[in-house]
Amino acid sequence: MSGVVVQNVARADAGVIDGLARAGVATLHEAQGRKGLLAACMRPIYAGARIAGSAVTISAPPGDNWMLHVAIEQIEAGDILVLAPTSPCEDGYFGDLLATSARARGCRGLVIEAGVRDVRDLTEMGFPVWSKAVFAQGTVKETVGSVNVPVVCAGACVEAGDVIVADDDGVVVVRRAEAAEVLAAAERRIAGEEAKRERLAAGELGLDIYDMRGRLAEKGLKYV
Amino acid sequence: MSGVVVQNVARADAGVIDGLARAGVATLHEAQGRKGLLAACMRPIYAGARIAGSAVTISAPPGDNWMLHVAIEQIEAGDILVLAPTSPCEDGYFGDLLATSARARGCRGLVIEAGVRDVRDLTEMGFPVWSKAVFAQGTVKETVGSVNVPVVCAGACVEAGDVIVADDDGVVVVRRAEAAEVLAAAERRIAGEEAKRERLAAGELGLDIYDMRGRLAEKGLKYV
Amino acid sequence: MSGVVVQNVARADAGVIDGLARAGVATLHEAQGRKGLLAACMRPIYAGARIAGSAVTISAPPGDNWMLHVAIEQIEAGDILVLAPTSPCEDGYFGDLLATSARARGCRGLVIEAGVRDVRDLTEMGFPVWSKAVFAQGTVKETVGSVNVPVVCAGACVEAGDVIVADDDGVVVVRRAEAAEVLAAAERRIAGEEAKRERLAAGELGLDIYDMRGRLAEKGLKYV
Amino acid sequence: MSGVVVQNVARADAGVIDGLARAGVATLHEAQGRKGLLAACMRPIYAGARIAGSAVTISAPPGDNWMLHVAIEQIEAGDILVLAPTSPCEDGYFGDLLATSARARGCRGLVIEAGVRDVRDLTEMGFPVWSKAVFAQGTVKETVGSVNVPVVCAGACVEAGDVIVADDDGVVVVRRAEAAEVLAAAERRIAGEEAKRERLAAGELGLDIYDMRGRLAEKGLKYV
Amino acid sequence: MSGVVVQNVARADAGVIDGLARAGVATLHEAQGRKGLLAACMRPIYAGARIAGSAVTISAPPGDNWMLHVAIEQIEAGDILVLAPTSPCEDGYFGDLLATSARARGCRGLVIEAGVRDVRDLTEMGFPVWSKAVFAQGTVKETVGSVNVPVVCAGACVEAGDVIVADDDGVVVVRRAEAAEVLAAAERRIAGEEAKRERLAAGELGLDIYDMRGRLAEKGLKYV
Amino acid sequence: MSGVVVQNVARADAGVIDGLARAGVATLHEAQGRKGLLAACMRPIYAGARIAGSAVTISAPPGDNWMLHVAIEQIEAGDILVLAPTSPCEDGYFGDLLATSARARGCRGLVIEAGVRDVRDLTEMGFPVWSKAVFAQGTVKETVGSVNVPVVCAGACVEAGDVIVADDDGVVVVRRAEAAEVLAAAERRIAGEEAKRERLAAGELGLDIYDMRGRLAEKGLKYV
Repeated sequence: MSGVVVQNVARADAGVIDGLARAGVATLHEAQGRKGLLAACMRPIYAGARIAGSAVTISAPPGDNWMLHVAIEQIEAGDILVLAPTSPCEDGYFGDLLATSARARGCRGLVIEAGVRDVRDLTEMGFPVWSKAVFAQGTVKETVGSVNVPVVCAGACVEAGDVIVADDDGVVVVRRAEAAEVLAAAERRIAGEEAKRERLAAGELGLDIYDMRGRLAEKGLKYV
Repeated sequence: MSGVVVQNVARADAGVIDGLARAGVATLHEAQGRKGLLAACMRPIYAGARIAGSAVTISAPPGDNWMLHVAIEQIEAGDILVLAPTSPCEDGYFGDLLATSARARGCRGLVIEAGVRDVRDLTEMGFPVWSKAVFAQGTVKETVGSVNVPVVCAGACVEAGDVIVADDDGVVVVRRAEAAEVLAAAERRIAGEEAKRERLAAGELGLDIYDMRGRLAEKGLKYV
Repeated sequence: MSGVVVQNVARADAGVIDGLARAGVATLHEAQGRKGLLAACMRPIYAGARIAGSAVTISAPPGDNWMLHVAIEQIEAGDILVLAPTSPCEDGYFGDLLATSARARGCRGLVIEAGVRDVRDLTEMGFPVWSKAVFAQGTVKETVGSVNVPVVCAGACVEAGDVIVADDDGVVVVRRAEAAEVLAAAERRIAGEEAKRERLAAGELGLDIYDMRGRLAEKGLKYV
Repeated sequence: MSGVVVQNVARADAGVIDGLARAGVATLHEAQGRKGLLAACMRPIYAGARIAGSAVTISAPPGDNWMLHVAIEQIEAGDILVLAPTSPCEDGYFGDLLATSARARGCRGLVIEAGVRDVRDLTEMGFPVWSKAVFAQGTVKETVGSVNVPVVCAGACVEAGDVIVADDDGVVVVRRAEAAEVLAAAERRIAGEEAKRERLAAGELGLDIYDMRGRLAEKGLKYV
Repeated sequence: MSGVVVQNVARADAGVIDGLARAGVATLHEAQGRKGLLAACMRPIYAGARIAGSAVTISAPPGDNWMLHVAIEQIEAGDILVLAPTSPCEDGYFGDLLATSARARGCRGLVIEAGVRDVRDLTEMGFPVWSKAVFAQGTVKETVGSVNVPVVCAGACVEAGDVIVADDDGVVVVRRAEAAEVLAAAERRIAGEEAKRERLAAGELGLDIYDMRGRLAEKGLKYV
Repeated sequence: MSGVVVQNVARADAGVIDGLARAGVATLHEAQGRKGLLAACMRPIYAGARIAGSAVTISAPPGDNWMLHVAIEQIEAGDILVLAPTSPCEDGYFGDLLATSARARGCRGLVIEAGVRDVRDLTEMGFPVWSKAVFAQGTVKETVGSVNVPVVCAGACVEAGDVIVADDDGVVVVRRAEAAEVLAAAERRIAGEEAKRERLAAGELGLDIYDMRGRLAEKGLKYV
């Protein structure tokens, strides 16, 4: 089952991907019907990064980072590496040397349901990583896994070429085939929110803007 | 039991509340006899904020943020929202729109034993949040909860109108009726610590300042 | 077994210790054969610190920080305090007063498999701490423990006088007797990495630099 | 705040308490409006026990079981000990000697948000315990706490004399003043469930028994 | 995206399903190339059950068990319910009434990445459940989810009609299309293990049976 | 550092080992000064086993069980296998085939800070295991570790030949050189407890038996 590298992966349109980055994780998650979010354990190694890119997926054995070298060859400019270990692991699969290599190929960042190390160097490089742990624990290069096969990363299915968006709120995956439609929905949502933000900032209440008082009363809410 | 909004909540004196903010969480926790601390899982979304305010409490179902809209109407200037879900939940109940609305009412921040999202926006706004998780997961508006009833938030009982103090060390609740007395105790404690800080900085040992050597020997401590 | 303070602990050479600080945690962990790492739960209270020093070890009861006062007397300039509770505990054993005292003795930082408080003050002082939790919970001074005995801290054995190195990647312990040899291995490793970093930055692949293609094929990796 | 033993605690009616035991945790939790449940981490040391009794509450320092001896003197026949540590702790506060003593006073069991030990002996004695951990770690007797003061145990407020009910589903607290009313509601609920159980066992669907189809269609559920 | 019930789901051959039950989780996981395992947090409510059946999948909001009623109508004899909440939740979605209803439809058990209650009754009924938690916390019926759509349950992708096998080791999913082939591989594996078990029981070493000594020496293993 | 198998390990006296088994974990932990306990996450796969034996230690890479085969050759009758992974791992390193092999060499059980599988078979065989997880996840045989070197297992240092005692309370390690002395201390403790158990069973209070009332009053305990 493992031991496969899928080549010639289709990517979403570059303009759509960049639009998705601007929308951000929380908005996209809502815009696509509250799906695709990775678990809350996935945290950025530094604050402020917001990226989007096409997933190069990696299924790797616990404590073995060999497939990262294989995956880097599959990177096209604008891609994001997505690593899911085949069983829970916190080891530091990735550090500044791999980041240097990935960046040279045009990689925008890493999403890894495991550990990362050299985080000071990665921060100085501005190479963003979302991970489950920061841990210097070393890995081996003994067992093959797969690249660009479907994986479950932090509870979300990710296929090669899906769009990954990551920011301070976490990580969301948008299906490649749905990317344009999700972007459109997100842009409508952002436009709608702007008007509401102004009204809220002016002191109007959500209770009134969203006309909630009647339904709350029906559900039995009592003021005492 | 749920479905109640308590209005006309008494608050502590504004000057006392501001004094409690200056004292900070660790000092207040000691000054009031080591009680009232929320669990260590409650972390700020950004470093450096230190706030105090009167609690507007929210008991909310898991994954349902409807009561936040109801609670915002109950905010008076200087209040802090305190949300406890009725069962463990990490969903992102609160983001930048709600923060805009809460701030317009004079809210100083949010303490939530669940998740928060739009943390980059909240950080830019300077709207501080202490939460159990950062998670973009959306919520629904289907089930009523209660506002300004007693809640257990992260292991601490909080009643509406209690004083909440939060900083980089976490969150502590001070009973409204005890606020002035706790502030006085905290100020005595701070005064006492200043002298000790100087002696310690000068190289004197706690062993001598606090006269511990005899009691340590009695308890059997041996130097080898 | 407890109730012992070991004095006259041997330290590693100061120059070696400073060299180890420059190498950093991830490199040293590799250089000494992937051992000595503390668990990933040990996180710095602020980013950017990188220290090395000789361990003054503390075995303390849960919720009792008395031995910290005893340990501070044993500090020599350049030391690092290492506290392991005798059972799991998140209490805030250490705050700004103890940091003031420790710093006055020349202490470079604290590694504690428990909680720490006053983290804003500690950050302003530039006194680095690696801990399992930030928690304002107070402690008592009732039960003796031991100082400078062997402890297991976050899963790693630490003996008094061992070298502790800590940075944004976590904490590693280097045996005192092996410190010079580990430093030499680390420096060789760093030198070797520099050349590789340049080749990787230029776009060469790890697959080629490390000559992995043949072995991957042998293990059955297929490109499809 | 600590250092207090409250005597002369009022208990609920013994017949009501026994009725509550028969109803069980899940039914009572529903019958009283979904409140009062302790967190899911509280597990029985052996399967099959179902008890109810009046709470003798204990607030104890981490790793210090002195107050258990104090609390046992306060037990009346039919009581249940409820221990909440003042900060998170897994130590084994309680074993077969304390169980022997508690049983001699008529104690029906222990609910402890910490650890327990001698679980084989406790199982053989038939002395049930609900705890967060099984851990042989010893405790000291150095610091006083309080007995029969309000505590927060595993996220639920418990006052002395409240009724505790515990079974394989976990632990629920029923306010003393509400005990009779909750029992009545539980008995109505049980009666209503019996008829439904028979219809469900006969193959009728909840969709029809509870008349859900229309409301599901309104909410947009589609069959494809 | 949610609000869909897929009907007319294809199932695997009944004889194959029963064969998979006999093989058990650990063997099937190996036989299908070490994939399909649900996370280790999924534990049985009682020891000794071993079941296999076709998955009826449920995607449900946190704290809302409405879709279980919908799903039960979709059960065919021999099926297993598989519930994945849309965000992490420990609430008790399922108890003895739902089990009575599910059993009346021929359901063999429940796999739920959330909580279950009435576990004593379920144990007496012999209705097996694998869950993340035992928790009496009630749920609401307010928000629709979906039935028989693909879900990620405890880290594994499950589609309606896939074969679920569960025993004391946990839960594994076998793709419907691969079920016969996996059963054949499992049976070969079991046959091969029997001979090895006898040799091992007679005192032969795995080192010799699997001819490992040479390869261990090559990898540098030293006996001292 | 890894890649070493230490042979010719000294064991404690067999009669002492059997005496330690009779004393049990909680008593031994106290008798040796509250040290040597493994973390509370180490739980037995079935209730009721109580064993003692000499440790054959294994340091293994995450997800790689090769060293178990190597270790089994080093077993002498009465030994217990103790496996510590070099980084956190839940994989199922051990199942019924390895148990068959280990038992044929006289092994009394396994202590593993990782996962175990085939637990139904192991229970039927009466082969006891204390582990951090039950998980069917398979492992590879690619990387060497070490046998009979010192390890840290679940937070406790274990050296080859140390005595391991395990029962329903968990696992404790007794240094080989201290085994006879610890047994003597445990037997004194057991004798002392017997008299106390009788007095407690007769209704005498620990407060009186241990003469605690005066010291409690001194510490400020108040009865109200």
